[in-house]
Amino acid sequence: MGQYAAPIRDMQFVLHEVLNVEAELKYMPKHAELDADTINQVLEEAGKFCSEVVFPLNQSGDREGCTYEGDGVVRTPAGFREAYRQYVEAGWAGLGCDPDYGGQGLPAFVNNALYEMLNSANQAWTMYPGLSHGAYECLHAHGTPEQKSTYLPKLVSGEWTGTMCLTEPHCGTDLGILRTKAEPNGDGSYVLTGTKIFISSGEHDMAQNIVHLVLARLPGTPMGTKGISLFIVPKFLPDAGGAVGARNGIKCGSIEHKMGIHGNATCVMNLDGASGWLVGEENKGLNAMFVMMNAARLGVGMQGLGLTEVAYQNSLVYAKERLQMRSLTGPKAPDKPADPIIVHPDVRRMLLTQKAYAEGGRAFAYWAALNIDKELSHADDAARREAGEYVALLTPVIKAFLTDNAFEGTNLAMQIYGGHGFISEWGMEQYVRDARINMIYEGTNSIQALDLLGRKILGDMGAKLKRFGKLVAEFVEAEGVKPEMQEFINPLADIGEKVQKLTMEIGMKAMQNPDEVGAAAVPYMRCVGHLVFSYFWARMARVALDHAASGDAFYTAKLGTARFYFAKLLPETASAIRAARAGAKPMMDSDEALF
Amino acid sequence: MGQYAAPIRDMQFVLHEVLNVEAELKYMPKHAELDADTINQVLEEAGKFCSEVVFPLNQSGDREGCTYEGDGVVRTPAGFREAYRQYVEAGWAGLGCDPDYGGQGLPAFVNNALYEMLNSANQAWTMYPGLSHGAYECLHAHGTPEQKSTYLPKLVSGEWTGTMCLTEPHCGTDLGILRTKAEPNGDGSYVLTGTKIFISSGEHDMAQNIVHLVLARLPGTPMGTKGISLFIVPKFLPDAGGAVGARNGIKCGSIEHKMGIHGNATCVMNLDGASGWLVGEENKGLNAMFVMMNAARLGVGMQGLGLTEVAYQNSLVYAKERLQMRSLTGPKAPDKPADPIIVHPDVRRMLLTQKAYAEGGRAFAYWAALNIDKELSHADDAARREAGEYVALLTPVIKAFLTDNAFEGTNLAMQIYGGHGFISEWGMEQYVRDARINMIYEGTNSIQALDLLGRKILGDMGAKLKRFGKLVAEFVEAEGVKPEMQEFINPLADIGEKVQKLTMEIGMKAMQNPDEVGAAAVPYMRCVGHLVFSYFWARMARVALDHAASGDAFYTAKLGTARFYFAKLLPETASAIRAARAGAKPMMDSDEALF
Repeated sequence: MGQYAAPIRDMQFVLHEVLNVEAELKYMPKHAELDADTINQVLEEAGKFCSEVVFPLNQSGDREGCTYEGDGVVRTPAGFREAYRQYVEAGWAGLGCDPDYGGQGLPAFVNNALYEMLNSANQAWTMYPGLSHGAYECLHAHGTPEQKSTYLPKLVSGEWTGTMCLTEPHCGTDLGILRTKAEPNGDGSYVLTGTKIFISSGEHDMAQNIVHLVLARLPGTPMGTKGISLFIVPKFLPDAGGAVGARNGIKCGSIEHKMGIHGNATCVMNLDGASGWLVGEENKGLNAMFVMMNAARLGVGMQGLGLTEVAYQNSLVYAKERLQMRSLTGPKAPDKPADPIIVHPDVRRMLLTQKAYAEGGRAFAYWAALNIDKELSHADDAARREAGEYVALLTPVIKAFLTDNAFEGTNLAMQIYGGHGFISEWGMEQYVRDARINMIYEGTNSIQALDLLGRKILGDMGAKLKRFGKLVAEFVEAEGVKPEMQEFINPLADIGEKVQKLTMEIGMKAMQNPDEVGAAAVPYMRCVGHLVFSYFWARMARVALDHAASGDAFYTAKLGTARFYFAKLLPETASAIRAARAGAKPMMDSDEALF
Repeated sequence: MGQYAAPIRDMQFVLHEVLNVEAELKYMPKHAELDADTINQVLEEAGKFCSEVVFPLNQSGDREGCTYEGDGVVRTPAGFREAYRQYVEAGWAGLGCDPDYGGQGLPAFVNNALYEMLNSANQAWTMYPGLSHGAYECLHAHGTPEQKSTYLPKLVSGEWTGTMCLTEPHCGTDLGILRTKAEPNGDGSYVLTGTKIFISSGEHDMAQNIVHLVLARLPGTPMGTKGISLFIVPKFLPDAGGAVGARNGIKCGSIEHKMGIHGNATCVMNLDGASGWLVGEENKGLNAMFVMMNAARLGVGMQGLGLTEVAYQNSLVYAKERLQMRSLTGPKAPDKPADPIIVHPDVRRMLLTQKAYAEGGRAFAYWAALNIDKELSHADDAARREAGEYVALLTPVIKAFLTDNAFEGTNLAMQIYGGHGFISEWGMEQYVRDARINMIYEGTNSIQALDLLGRKILGDMGAKLKRFGKLVAEFVEAEGVKPEMQEFINPLADIGEKVQKLTMEIGMKAMQNPDEVGAAAVPYMRCVGHLVFSYFWARMARVALDHAASGDAFYTAKLGTARFYFAKLLPETASAIRAARAGAKPMMDSDEALF
């Protein structure tokens, strides 16, 4: 039950009309030849693949789940393996990967669009190739030439998949206290021993081999994050020819039963004298892993975006079909026993909230991905640096803001279905359950908020935030004089000033008491998220106004959603600012024993 | 896994110190003899029963779920039947019921306290006796003497259970379009034919008989809610001696697979020539059913409260045990590898949010239940009327505000567990799944908001709201002059004025356009909920201040939570007021085709 059609028109709007990616690509030598037609063709094909191959397995995969068959063997739900085979065969695994290793070399924003669609279609399934792509990026950045030539072609083709093995039973957020040990063999290899938990895609039946990237501690290293190194620990050791060889001592001990993403195997991985090879430098494992974690955080944001979109699509269909009560302003479908529920203002509030979150998130996330491309490939040093700062600043916002919104959005979609929303058959409650994990893994949203406020903003005295603020200010200055833009520019300028003031205020308080950062971080994150959304909604409104005379309903709809965003969603900041300003005292005044 | 201990101390605080129930009971002839000791003893015993008998079945019941065994037979999870037998044997079923039919005649507030605890222990299980109690109340109010003598003793003892059969596949909110038919036999009985869905506790193996209260339509009645009548349709027809006789033509056709409350059977009930007897007058079925629905709405509020409390208790234990990262202000447990996470301000925010919602909700809900007792039993006419108005006004607020808060609270509890929160074994994700239904059934929270704003407030030109406002104003006047109360009274007075102004404003707009009610209702509900919570938190702070010198940590903690409430939760109204004032235009301006 349910449906998904890739929102191609809106993707094209964002890429070509709002972000003007073609103009940007001209400054990136390796992408300079890429044109809009090619991008559009890829989007269309990807959309078809997602709707036709991946989406039909979403509900059945949830119902069946993964099965631990004993002795380290995990079976994925019916159809997952075959869909993955088709994915590999069609070359989707290498879409954004380096051509030197067999990839297609398309920009990150195209790959992100692909991932939005895959996640709309089936988040649990998508986590198999998704984790692989993270492993690819980590090895591409930090692997030795030999490691690259051994592993990257297999990850790029999708013949092998990858994982990241960080968490242990006693530590998730706090990797500094991890215990998995790596002892050198003297031949450049290491022997790894320990237990990892919550390893997504840690074991399955979809690929020949699994490349685990494992954090572990060398003998005699200090406690804390500075004593951690990163290792490649393949399920099967590659033989001299690069093919699958001997079974390595890393084995799945069990899989978790969990609230959602049932189709993805969440594994306990036991390392029992497993062979591993160091990636990057000794004791600098977290640096190397951060490449993967940042990619994963953007990836989790895309999971949020994908679920927001598909839940919206399904609740919209229901809202137009379900007949219940009459409009308060009189019957709208007098020939029917009741009006379709889309006539009711509160149903429209629930629909437009989802729509504004999906479309705002898409503009934001694709822009961020475009900046990843600029960071990697722009011809100009300064442009690369600037893009890198945007990405660093806004990665935690994409992760936390988009997944908070997705949980709200999927819950609203479910609410529109009334009692039917709670029934598994209709598929809506699965979106809520799947969306819930995105607020937790790859660093909880509280941790993202701390990263944003503490490290990314206060950590450089607001320099990165000022840079983004300048972008906003330029837009405000250019558009603020135009009467038709007032309704969008005024609230954008207002939230910009408020965030600036709030940041200063928290910064001052934090110098007296570091707990002020932890106390303010979560509501502060909501404010920054809305600043970013306000900026993109104003930019989208600008484009829509430029086409107002075209008569194209797409632009009329876009303006309607922009107005809804500013009227109904941005006001969340009024509370968030108050909550952020309330400071640490309300939490810290009470002794632990009083809870 | 997990734990639950009834919050007896806080219950006693609310009943004896804040609400002063003993003084109130003196004015209710039928309860005048009831003293604090007896109440406390009941609470203690109920708490023990809930922790020891009902709670241990919560997680296993979720995992096993109900089973449809074919031919109308439903098996409940292991242990449910035996726990119910103990419940019946101990007399809990009749705690708040009329002694004329075998009940213990205790006040509604004691019964509500029992239900808070039962729901903390196991919501799915509690829905079996919970629905019965609703059926009891409906028949008690509207049944004929004969119906009462046949059914009430069995419902009061718990030998038989009850249900309410309203929803059909094409209608839930909109009962006016229901299709189940009832045709008179001429002997006072009726033949009922139709299909009901989403019937909680509709079939099970826990009791001898099930008394279904069914809404149906008599021949030739007009469409709409005015053509609906209410019928008793027992699973087994009572014989002349009142014992279980012939099997009636109402049968469970299947049970739903759903997001949560797996231990409760959500049934499709097929009526195929079932015998039924009219309850109340012809075509006035909704009036009669409203007694049950109002009871059920308060009951759903207690489900929200119960889940908020138990999730809080479990997340608190985890926050004190789980070691992860150091406090930003320096190590608090230097002898351990990391600090317990309760040192982090954001973890405390999540804990205190739950605590403030649980304790605020308890004061509010018990006060409402006390008003039910006054409405039924107060010696004075005017006092009965006044109490009835509070109950009518605030029933939708208890239902919607407490269940919204419970969903937020259980999600925060789960978030505190990090990745472990998502794993079924830890039990936290079940609370989220169970809490989710409470926002939907017995009228979605949107419907509650419409009932509050449209019917209860604008429907009598704000008279009931003014009455509650007067209560608040009196307290503000009495306490506002005292310096130590300023921090509580000022925000209370402020939100009181704001709600009054907002109500006037929406009322004016609604005269021009009825959609303004639907557009404002949901955020308006949040404002009224916070007005009520502010009032009770200020009252609780008053009591706590009176005992400040006692050195009892309970009062210190209460003041800390009150301060947290005003600093961090009440500010939600800043956004809600803006969203409510934004009006209908942002939703209604766009044509349906533009979604």
